[in-house]
Amino acid sequence: MQGAQHSVRTSARTNRGRPRPLPSADRADERIAALARACRPGWSLPGQFYSEEAIYRADLEHVWRSGWLFAGHTCEIPKPGDYFTLEVGADPVIVIRGEDGAIRGLHNVCRHRGSLICTEPAGHSKRLVCPYHQWTYGLDGRLLACRGMPEGLDKSHFPLKQAHVRDVDGLIYLSLADVPPDFQSAHEMISSFASPQGFPKAKVAKAVDYLVKANWKLIWENNRECYHCNVNHPQYIKANFDHYNADDTPPHIQEQITAALLRTEQKRGSGSVTATHKRSGMTIFPDLEKNIWYSANRTPLVDGYVTESMDGKQVAPLMGGYKTAHIDTLRIRTLPNFWNHSSCDHGVSTRLLPVGPQLTSVRVWWLVNAGALEGRDYELSKLQPFWQLTSEQDWEICERQQRGINSSAYAPGPYSTYKEYNVASFVRWYLQSLTSPKNI
Amino acid sequence: MQGAQHSVRTSARTNRGRPRPLPSADRADERIAALARACRPGWSLPGQFYSEEAIYRADLEHVWRSGWLFAGHTCEIPKPGDYFTLEVGADPVIVIRGEDGAIRGLHNVCRHRGSLICTEPAGHSKRLVCPYHQWTYGLDGRLLACRGMPEGLDKSHFPLKQAHVRDVDGLIYLSLADVPPDFQSAHEMISSFASPQGFPKAKVAKAVDYLVKANWKLIWENNRECYHCNVNHPQYIKANFDHYNADDTPPHIQEQITAALLRTEQKRGSGSVTATHKRSGMTIFPDLEKNIWYSANRTPLVDGYVTESMDGKQVAPLMGGYKTAHIDTLRIRTLPNFWNHSSCDHGVSTRLLPVGPQLTSVRVWWLVNAGALEGRDYELSKLQPFWQLTSEQDWEICERQQRGINSSAYAPGPYSTYKEYNVASFVRWYLQSLTSPKNI
Amino acid sequence: MQGAQHSVRTSARTNRGRPRPLPSADRADERIAALARACRPGWSLPGQFYSEEAIYRADLEHVWRSGWLFAGHTCEIPKPGDYFTLEVGADPVIVIRGEDGAIRGLHNVCRHRGSLICTEPAGHSKRLVCPYHQWTYGLDGRLLACRGMPEGLDKSHFPLKQAHVRDVDGLIYLSLADVPPDFQSAHEMISSFASPQGFPKAKVAKAVDYLVKANWKLIWENNRECYHCNVNHPQYIKANFDHYNADDTPPHIQEQITAALLRTEQKRGSGSVTATHKRSGMTIFPDLEKNIWYSANRTPLVDGYVTESMDGKQVAPLMGGYKTAHIDTLRIRTLPNFWNHSSCDHGVSTRLLPVGPQLTSVRVWWLVNAGALEGRDYELSKLQPFWQLTSEQDWEICERQQRGINSSAYAPGPYSTYKEYNVASFVRWYLQSLTSPKNI
Repeated sequence: MQGAQHSVRTSARTNRGRPRPLPSADRADERIAALARACRPGWSLPGQFYSEEAIYRADLEHVWRSGWLFAGHTCEIPKPGDYFTLEVGADPVIVIRGEDGAIRGLHNVCRHRGSLICTEPAGHSKRLVCPYHQWTYGLDGRLLACRGMPEGLDKSHFPLKQAHVRDVDGLIYLSLADVPPDFQSAHEMISSFASPQGFPKAKVAKAVDYLVKANWKLIWENNRECYHCNVNHPQYIKANFDHYNADDTPPHIQEQITAALLRTEQKRGSGSVTATHKRSGMTIFPDLEKNIWYSANRTPLVDGYVTESMDGKQVAPLMGGYKTAHIDTLRIRTLPNFWNHSSCDHGVSTRLLPVGPQLTSVRVWWLVNAGALEGRDYELSKLQPFWQLTSEQDWEICERQQRGINSSAYAPGPYSTYKEYNVASFVRWYLQSLTSPKNI
Repeated sequence: MQGAQHSVRTSARTNRGRPRPLPSADRADERIAALARACRPGWSLPGQFYSEEAIYRADLEHVWRSGWLFAGHTCEIPKPGDYFTLEVGADPVIVIRGEDGAIRGLHNVCRHRGSLICTEPAGHSKRLVCPYHQWTYGLDGRLLACRGMPEGLDKSHFPLKQAHVRDVDGLIYLSLADVPPDFQSAHEMISSFASPQGFPKAKVAKAVDYLVKANWKLIWENNRECYHCNVNHPQYIKANFDHYNADDTPPHIQEQITAALLRTEQKRGSGSVTATHKRSGMTIFPDLEKNIWYSANRTPLVDGYVTESMDGKQVAPLMGGYKTAHIDTLRIRTLPNFWNHSSCDHGVSTRLLPVGPQLTSVRVWWLVNAGALEGRDYELSKLQPFWQLTSEQDWEICERQQRGINSSAYAPGPYSTYKEYNVASFVRWYLQSLTSPKNI
Repeated sequence: MQGAQHSVRTSARTNRGRPRPLPSADRADERIAALARACRPGWSLPGQFYSEEAIYRADLEHVWRSGWLFAGHTCEIPKPGDYFTLEVGADPVIVIRGEDGAIRGLHNVCRHRGSLICTEPAGHSKRLVCPYHQWTYGLDGRLLACRGMPEGLDKSHFPLKQAHVRDVDGLIYLSLADVPPDFQSAHEMISSFASPQGFPKAKVAKAVDYLVKANWKLIWENNRECYHCNVNHPQYIKANFDHYNADDTPPHIQEQITAALLRTEQKRGSGSVTATHKRSGMTIFPDLEKNIWYSANRTPLVDGYVTESMDGKQVAPLMGGYKTAHIDTLRIRTLPNFWNHSSCDHGVSTRLLPVGPQLTSVRVWWLVNAGALEGRDYELSKLQPFWQLTSEQDWEICERQQRGINSSAYAPGPYSTYKEYNVASFVRWYLQSLTSPKNI
């Protein structure tokens, strides 16, 4: 095997070695596109979209391997060599901080014979060494050594495949696409909200993993409305206003909202409420027409609540640059896999990862100021319940919905124009993504 | 959204929202029809019929969602608002007694976004309230309230989808078909036998659920012959004659049968033995040519047995209208999912529900007179073993058979014309059902 | 049913009853053949070959039901009527010793309605009686009795289907092919090596079953190189030389090998080293060009080791015809499912059986001289660890590799020409097998 000739052939063959598009794959795409076109706007999707293997595979290609995914927090990997791993569908990825301090995303797949390289959920390493034959990569993914291979082998042809990564004020985003969609406007928008929260100087007080027996879209549809909150989320509705909507907000509630906005303005200072949600009902998100798959805003809490805890009382020291507890809740969400509710004293991040047509892995993190000490500055028993309960209530809802949708008797139903406008928008965004040319 | 316009579009779109027949589905139907035509009469089916996903889906359409299914007993839901749930394949259904006392079958799928409504195996409710957004249905399935939807929404367009239901002297039958097959003659026939048993005034002493790792047809084929009884059912054959057949009934056995018939006639009164099976071997069932998918008869027990218990002695008070214990056993069976053996003092119902190509859910109920008190009038330890043992012996047989059939070396074999005539008839009936236009 | 007519139709219908080749099956074959042609020689296979259901089914047909499989040892079934069972994919098979002392392979599928006949992993029986309807077969598979079938039934048409079986000095080989490939040369070659080990007079000291979550080919590729040994097999490399290769064998290691060869020759006598591997690196196997899917040789151990135990010291009495412990290790391997390492005092057999695209059942046996008594002549705690550890280390490697290969980012990588030549040969052999006309 000649080295020079070898390397030329390598790049040519990398494509040839991959599964080639098969005629049947094209037919599957056409079939799915036809199903998507037949969907009725403002109604829930036909059952296949929530259950069928072929559509799940299309979701992986057109959504999950095309867009920007939330991966985790920079504070989880503070030092060079710190890493964590995740799986997007069947794609294992390493998120690692390099010698240069930059965070990178590397496919956790050795270029030799495909073994996983990092097998732990998180760790620290000076080099990435494949446990099979010790091919050794730098923290930037470059192949440094592959003892035993012919000398002519050009190591520059075998780096770990890279994912695109962005650090948005402590939130790590990842794209598996060859050419990812624009991130600049999302970056600026999220950053302007996340910056005062101080995520880079936070620490993970707790993280819980869930395996939810529901399609990932059902979890989003659940997230995009508070029509279900009154009965299902007794804790959440005590703290928040957004279960009220255009059709059922009594005047005294709107007055309470206005009063809450005023309180915050007085405590936090003038001009601070610019991007605060001022009315009942959820903010508009997503927005297909404006290509908005990300958003952030502040939302007032009810009187007596300075944080999303069971009794509304502060449960940890102030985070980031906050001087007062009265800052409303910060909310960030990005499609297809992230939302965050942050109060003055703690932040809660939720990340979805697809596992199968009817299975989604969800991680929920509770973050506090890095200097806070458990037992002294905060108790998990006070920090966790609000979002643990609310999250678990939602997973149960989604699993029940999945079971009903699997019925041959299921048929799409209409979304409420008052309360489920964001669900309709989500479905529109999804169908557009599904039928767009993929980035991979 | 305009109300009037809305409702017109609703009904039009309900069809469009459902999965449309795909070219590949047609090809699958043709392929299955060709396989069915190639089956040799009087021989067991080729392996695919017992294992393949595509044929399982065809079974669901052509058999399970086309015919009449046994669901349960009226005595399980005596009061308005009482309900139980079941799943036919992936189709969850509620069987509920209405304010008017009538029993209805409702698809357990909210018309809004498809959530399960009733999540418990059984219960009582004045209204059916979806746990997701509290869409509220009457016990007859009508949508009564959907707080939060636009006012123009015509609630009459969103009832819970109905299944057809029949109450046959306490036995509840269900059809998921749009236009179910005729039930009248089945109703009359079963009723004439079931009536004296008094199922409406029975109670469930015990119910056991099994998950059997075998195709549902293997369980039927097992049920349709007693060729396997001699070795596999030591308890059953002590009480019954039907493991004897045309080829191996010695004269003294036929004499015992005749004597048993005479005994019953003397005890129970003249004319009562009209529909009693008078010879060895099983009664003929099913009968494709006469379109018979239901049947009932009485069968004599051996001398010393008045009931199907371990020692033949009565284990509970007389049921229904019986004045004497000497009434032979009552047997009812309906395809595709029910059989019942009832003696003077208790009845045993068996219900099959398909779960997958190689997985069947089976429930066995033991029923006694509603007035009977456990501990005083009956003991489960005497009531249960006869049919618990016999049933579990059969499930084990079917699981072994499934494993052998999965082999690439399996080939159809011949049924005994003496002992397996009913199995051959069952297969004929099945193939006819599979290739008939579906009712759904 | 007329006997004569019956039997004619039987054989005709046996073929008609089997699944017929469908147009889609042909297309699948073409697609797989095209994928195989596109594979780059000397590189690992594209991901589908290790994960896809359709290719797994093709592997079953073209490899597992076409070639010769190791089944077990004659010493496991010493007496007429002794048997053990195994499953090749979904095909259950009985390996049984007949009245005539000959060993036969019988499909464990009743010719009546397909039930499993033997349900235990091993046992002893004078007749093979189906537990369903007691069809009774001789130990040679002939149908002896089928009480209850019409008299015209020609029993000679319903023997248990046979597999081909060969006894190679105590190693039992099986072929499920109608016309198996030539075995003569394999038989002679293996026999010449296995003969002195005395497998027929061995006994199983221990057997362990593993379910490895990896495609069977990954387990072979792991077996076909020692590139991974240095780091992964600390026990193995202390005893052996074959982790050294053409590129990294220092002169003093080649001197040690030569010295080891000399030692053995002196102890064991002249001429005995004819088929001993005399250099570093693994022997060449398989060899597609020479149609070699079997091989055997002896390999020297390092100074101080007379057996593959943790400290190299003898752990059981000498086996077979050995007069000295200094006999090098005997190694036998046959594709697609067997390898054996035997030392002077014990032998270790490894058998693979496919369970699914990403699941393989592996059994490892430890054999010692039949006369050896546990506690007196050997201790499992000394006999087992060397190969138990080495095996389990390999299964873990293969499972990690499977997970990485499942990634959409996996792409084939190059094999080392120094260290992975046998892996490249295995892949060549596999692709040739996959695209050859099948024997079944």
